[in-house]
Amino acid sequence: MTNVAPGVWTAALTPLNDDLSVDMGAYLGHVAWLLANGCAGVVAWGTTGEANSFSLDERLAVIKALGKSGIASERLIVGTGCCAAPDTIALTKGVLDAGFANVLMLPPFYYKGVSDEGIFRAYAGVIERVRDARLRVYLYDIPQQTGFKLSTAVLARVRAAFDGVVVGVKNSSSDWSAMQAAAALPKFQVFAGSEEFLLATLRAGGPGCISATANVNCASLAEIVAAWRAGGGDGSQEAATRTRMMLQKYPMIPALKEIMALNTARPRWRLTRPPLVGLSADESAKLIAEARPHALIR
Amino acid sequence: MTNVAPGVWTAALTPLNDDLSVDMGAYLGHVAWLLANGCAGVVAWGTTGEANSFSLDERLAVIKALGKSGIASERLIVGTGCCAAPDTIALTKGVLDAGFANVLMLPPFYYKGVSDEGIFRAYAGVIERVRDARLRVYLYDIPQQTGFKLSTAVLARVRAAFDGVVVGVKNSSSDWSAMQAAAALPKFQVFAGSEEFLLATLRAGGPGCISATANVNCASLAEIVAAWRAGGGDGSQEAATRTRMMLQKYPMIPALKEIMALNTARPRWRLTRPPLVGLSADESAKLIAEARPHALIR
Repeated sequence: MTNVAPGVWTAALTPLNDDLSVDMGAYLGHVAWLLANGCAGVVAWGTTGEANSFSLDERLAVIKALGKSGIASERLIVGTGCCAAPDTIALTKGVLDAGFANVLMLPPFYYKGVSDEGIFRAYAGVIERVRDARLRVYLYDIPQQTGFKLSTAVLARVRAAFDGVVVGVKNSSSDWSAMQAAAALPKFQVFAGSEEFLLATLRAGGPGCISATANVNCASLAEIVAAWRAGGGDGSQEAATRTRMMLQKYPMIPALKEIMALNTARPRWRLTRPPLVGLSADESAKLIAEARPHALIR
Repeated sequence: MTNVAPGVWTAALTPLNDDLSVDMGAYLGHVAWLLANGCAGVVAWGTTGEANSFSLDERLAVIKALGKSGIASERLIVGTGCCAAPDTIALTKGVLDAGFANVLMLPPFYYKGVSDEGIFRAYAGVIERVRDARLRVYLYDIPQQTGFKLSTAVLARVRAAFDGVVVGVKNSSSDWSAMQAAAALPKFQVFAGSEEFLLATLRAGGPGCISATANVNCASLAEIVAAWRAGGGDGSQEAATRTRMMLQKYPMIPALKEIMALNTARPRWRLTRPPLVGLSADESAKLIAEARPHALIR
């Protein structure tokens, strides 16, 4: 059914050039570094990767480059959900054409107050028009950006209609009861959208988490997985949660890019596309001082 | 500075074929009908037109067709704001290439909690890269879909940085005090996003409203403008507001498409792209019964 490696997944940051285009060399280098440093897998073009700030062509170019880089399919998930179904279809086909299977699919997110029927039709329309037995879809529930939750009922309905194709959800809502309800669905994997729930997810039989902070913290998070396999993990989880709480005081993506800039001596890591903006000098100084005791600065 | 005709503007619905592609003939016919039946102008590809559910190519095809149809530039505004700056730039250039000047520009709307600095940089980046003296930009403030308001401070900053290019805002927030604050900015026109504020906007020196319900109600709304020119308008405004309150009990876009289907004997008017769905049979029957006394069914 599913074919993803369990453990810590990183929602990869997207490194930019001065003209705010994707720095492809830095991108592929960062993904390779993550996979070599404790990550079970990488999510390209997620929220952390500023996916929706890039055009279809820019996103397809990265997908093609990832395909040529020889990453194993079970170690990559690509975000493909857009507001417009033709875009979601084109990106999803692009992922398959590049030799990968797994996509993370936002529902169309412009309209609010949409019905379960509407969300079902949106997902069904895309999956039917992609029509590819290789496809594996993780639905993407991130109400803090979309403005609405995916109900357990709609997850169940989409899963049942596309059994073996719709294989899970990434739940970024921090709503543990919703994650538990989704995990009770047959043949359905729930990735927690934050490492705060990593140990709990593993103990509940889930595949792990997809984390933004893993861009700068993957080795520590991998320790939770190792400790869990050895029957423990509580201490590592508590430390990881403390680190996350510290990082959450800052705008997350700019803060992570700030740390990347420091750790790689590549100042352009600080660049984001608007509407995101880099940290101010004050915020940056405060973050660095706070991040050191958490061993986030190399 | 600005070059739009004052009065009632309609955010045009987008008629679809059975495969959910744009029915171009029906689209151009509807726009021509609106312009001949009381509308000062039409907004193509707004929220009511399901803009964000269509790809760049689909949106550009409609823009080109509108260009060939010979509509006067002062009677058309085209929605061009997307999450990804390259898409906003391509659409905005497409509007200019088609012989029009006016665009309605959403800020990038995926991320929430964004700063005024980030919104400013997003708008500035697009306008600087389009670089065309013909361009006239209306900013688009619709917090019920984007999840955030455009502050008066950010409107003022974008306006001042692009004096003569950024000429106004469409405010769909129903926040009259915000509309008044924006209207106090120099050389800045505030379109109300609902006809509920049409008379108040005209009396405050504004250009009018951009309305969804005008798709089915434009002649009645035009009476408010005529009555206002004659020194009155309160009675027409009260009637229009009652009609809107009735329509607002239904999902607005499907309800308007239901009425269009009845009035034009074109059943495919009912089609929407997911995540929007048509009215149920029950909702439809209830709407029709309620709409008749408001003279919405021809």
